[in-house]
Amino acid sequence: LAIASVEGDFTLPRVNAYATVEAMPPCDVVLVALKTTQNHLLSDLLPPLVKPGGAVLLFQNGLGMEPAVHALVGEQVLVVGGLCFICANKVGPGQIHHLDYGRVLMAIYGDRYLPQPTSPLLQKIAADFEQASLETRLSENLMLARWQKLVWNIPFNGLSVILDALTDALIAHPQTYKLATQLMHEVAAAAAGYQLEISENHIQAMLADTRQMPPYRTSMKIDYDERRPLEVEAILGNPIRYAAQVGVAMRSTTMLYQQLQFLNERDCLTPRTA
Amino acid sequence: LAIASVEGDFTLPRVNAYATVEAMPPCDVVLVALKTTQNHLLSDLLPPLVKPGGAVLLFQNGLGMEPAVHALVGEQVLVVGGLCFICANKVGPGQIHHLDYGRVLMAIYGDRYLPQPTSPLLQKIAADFEQASLETRLSENLMLARWQKLVWNIPFNGLSVILDALTDALIAHPQTYKLATQLMHEVAAAAAGYQLEISENHIQAMLADTRQMPPYRTSMKIDYDERRPLEVEAILGNPIRYAAQVGVAMRSTTMLYQQLQFLNERDCLTPRTA
Repeated sequence: LAIASVEGDFTLPRVNAYATVEAMPPCDVVLVALKTTQNHLLSDLLPPLVKPGGAVLLFQNGLGMEPAVHALVGEQVLVVGGLCFICANKVGPGQIHHLDYGRVLMAIYGDRYLPQPTSPLLQKIAADFEQASLETRLSENLMLARWQKLVWNIPFNGLSVILDALTDALIAHPQTYKLATQLMHEVAAAAAGYQLEISENHIQAMLADTRQMPPYRTSMKIDYDERRPLEVEAILGNPIRYAAQVGVAMRSTTMLYQQLQFLNERDCLTPRTA
Repeated sequence: LAIASVEGDFTLPRVNAYATVEAMPPCDVVLVALKTTQNHLLSDLLPPLVKPGGAVLLFQNGLGMEPAVHALVGEQVLVVGGLCFICANKVGPGQIHHLDYGRVLMAIYGDRYLPQPTSPLLQKIAADFEQASLETRLSENLMLARWQKLVWNIPFNGLSVILDALTDALIAHPQTYKLATQLMHEVAAAAAGYQLEISENHIQAMLADTRQMPPYRTSMKIDYDERRPLEVEAILGNPIRYAAQVGVAMRSTTMLYQQLQFLNERDCLTPRTA
């Protein structure tokens, strides 16, 4: 792996890479870094890999991935949700470009996303990450962490694809600034349906951060530009359905979701013709 | 003018064309076929042209153009709203391509869009159109006619630009079909705020017609593809403001409007750089 990083380039000349899970030894800790659009593969990938007493870490955006993984690996395996705050792209096979940030947040998944205290195993994993110079935070409320990240991901991933725009243009234009802010409030209202508070300060800080960031191409925009399947279900469909379960209608998010489904199915799920 | 028409090609070798209104004789009837984005020119164009006792016909999409024209030409000039049901494009200077349909509807503008009986002058104009083989209908309720057309124009003009799509794709995909239908209901609800009834039958008939139509590139999509200013105010902004005046919030239309304003200002109102 060749990593070109804002914090200094480096290469990993030898990595333990496997073409199949059958060729791998069982693991204490399995990090899943697939796009959520590939999560249907996990029922084949995870069972040969995870050890009882081990952990599966889902480093993915969105909401609602953990219940299926929990059902798959059983009570003996810790399911941990991971959120990455990093700007990094795979620019070619084995070629990583690290542009900015670099921090992860982890929290244990509990039944129906109920808060869970951290465990010695998770603390050990976090310590390993920290030892590898990866800034790591732990939370006891995975659902809050996921909704907090959705506050940004829903408007900016969605609008960046629909309007073919980077974050700087979306935040600079008064109409998309207004629309993004309104979407953020809608996400906060959905989280409030689960008694999760996302404050106005959190929203204003995210908007201010986005204004300060260098022009950023969101992950969904990168997927769209590459005509890869979009994470519409994890990032929009699931939050809309979770909100509906507590009686909150995410009307603007639903409109964004409908527009994205159209683009996804037309441009990303059908084979390209020359 | 060279017209390539589904109903037979023809050319008009000599037309009375003028580069300025000052070179034209005053007219009994002035047809305005400008895009609404150019209506700010009318304060220069109309006064030298219209005769007292004459008429100005606005063949334009959208809502809210007539009051300014009425104020401009005064009580002595009849202001008529015209709606074109035709699929025709200007494909080059003097080159017209007529693809489908060909019908106009006209109604007299009355103060605050209150219904107005037709007048002898309008009937005479309609008879001239009919004599020229143009199917012509008259209405006494201009506002109803404008809202009825907006029921189609708001979803299909808007979504065709935002999703870079022709009507057949929008109507075929279940999510955009659903979104278009919802937008149509929102427009009907806005019209209802003015005691104008747009029935469910009207909406279903429009959807069925759109499904039967050959793939159609909307006028706003053509403007966008040519990077010409989009008629966002006449087709979306004004209807939203008229609805707000009677307490109806057009939430989905507003989101469409915000997205279109972003695209319009980024791509159509700023000079293109090579």
